[in-house]
Amino acid sequence: MPRLADHDQRRTQITDAARRVVARAGLEAATFQSVAAEAGVSVRLVQYYFGTKRKFLLATHQAVVADAGTRFTRRLGALGAEPAPREVVRALLVELLPTDAARRQDTVVLNAFHTAALTASDVDGEDTLGAPRYLITAIADQLRRARAGATAPDRAADQDVDPDPDAELDAELIVAAASGLAQTLLVDETASARADRLLDRLLDRLVAPSASYRLE
Amino acid sequence: MPRLADHDQRRTQITDAARRVVARAGLEAATFQSVAAEAGVSVRLVQYYFGTKRKFLLATHQAVVADAGTRFTRRLGALGAEPAPREVVRALLVELLPTDAARRQDTVVLNAFHTAALTASDVDGEDTLGAPRYLITAIADQLRRARAGATAPDRAADQDVDPDPDAELDAELIVAAASGLAQTLLVDETASARADRLLDRLLDRLVAPSASYRLE
Repeated sequence: MPRLADHDQRRTQITDAARRVVARAGLEAATFQSVAAEAGVSVRLVQYYFGTKRKFLLATHQAVVADAGTRFTRRLGALGAEPAPREVVRALLVELLPTDAARRQDTVVLNAFHTAALTASDVDGEDTLGAPRYLITAIADQLRRARAGATAPDRAADQDVDPDPDAELDAELIVAAASGLAQTLLVDETASARADRLLDRLLDRLVAPSASYRLE
Repeated sequence: MPRLADHDQRRTQITDAARRVVARAGLEAATFQSVAAEAGVSVRLVQYYFGTKRKFLLATHQAVVADAGTRFTRRLGALGAEPAPREVVRALLVELLPTDAARRQDTVVLNAFHTAALTASDVDGEDTLGAPRYLITAIADQLRRARAGATAPDRAADQDVDPDPDAELDAELIVAAASGLAQTLLVDETASARADRLLDRLLDRLVAPSASYRLE
């Protein structure tokens, strides 16, 4: 029996191949056959590792999400101890934008899953909602941190008062805007030059929504 | 030779059928054959009206955009004379959100075009950018109107000074957020209940971004 590390390596080899196939030709092009050929392994091996088409597709989706998580953790680590809320949110959003070849591929793959979920397919919408919901919660936490810090200390210390009951709404808007921008960046070459300014503007507007947070 | 009105009616009959096919099964499912069958006409008739597959797909995309424009014009008319900038932007955004069956179908179809443009297909990204660019320009104009109205009159009257040089950035973020929300609404049933609050919050934050615009 192969060692566990070999198993992981094989699975990654296969999901990497699946990601390339999906990015190139859409989710409907990812079959056991096409992905086995892309990975240079047998169809039987793909079936052995993943069982059903659905499990295989979900593992491919999960691999994209996990890579984004790893990149985010690395970026967060580079910010040093106690990064400001705005910097944490920025680090999360940067990993959603297709500003290099790897992230572009991942953005196309995630969009392919979303689109496939809208029509009859092996995946549905609920399968793809875990990552955005996690992101919204994580960003809402940072918004509460940012805004609690901007209120008077005695108010912020009162644990019974949510310093910002609208944090979840703002977080959802931030994720929506970043997702929309990510899709625009895929098709509009002129938008890449504005990506950094758009991201900063989004943070200006929605992390610290009123000028008083920054100027006072 | 058929009258012009008959021509228009025939074309609409065929693009309506194409929209249903694309919404149900994706852009790759829309062939002369499948759409002719859906419309209850001959393949030759579809070819007669549209010529190439590409022209046929672009006419279908255009039909969706035109319908959104018609709905927006009707909504704008209902706002009465001289609607406030925020109300104009809201009327535009409401037409982007899939809050009924017809708009849901249109949102799925527009997404199908976007996704197809990312892989080899008869359409490319540039084909789908006209409508969002028009929207961004229209919203930026309203933001300038809103913010010029909020500054001192002598400043606003100075035609050489753009009252808000960041209006285009904010407009692009508004369209990105609305597009992202539209896609979320397609897959996340819990989001529909929040759609109105999210939209109002987006307008609070980005049309009148600082509290001073509303409170002073």
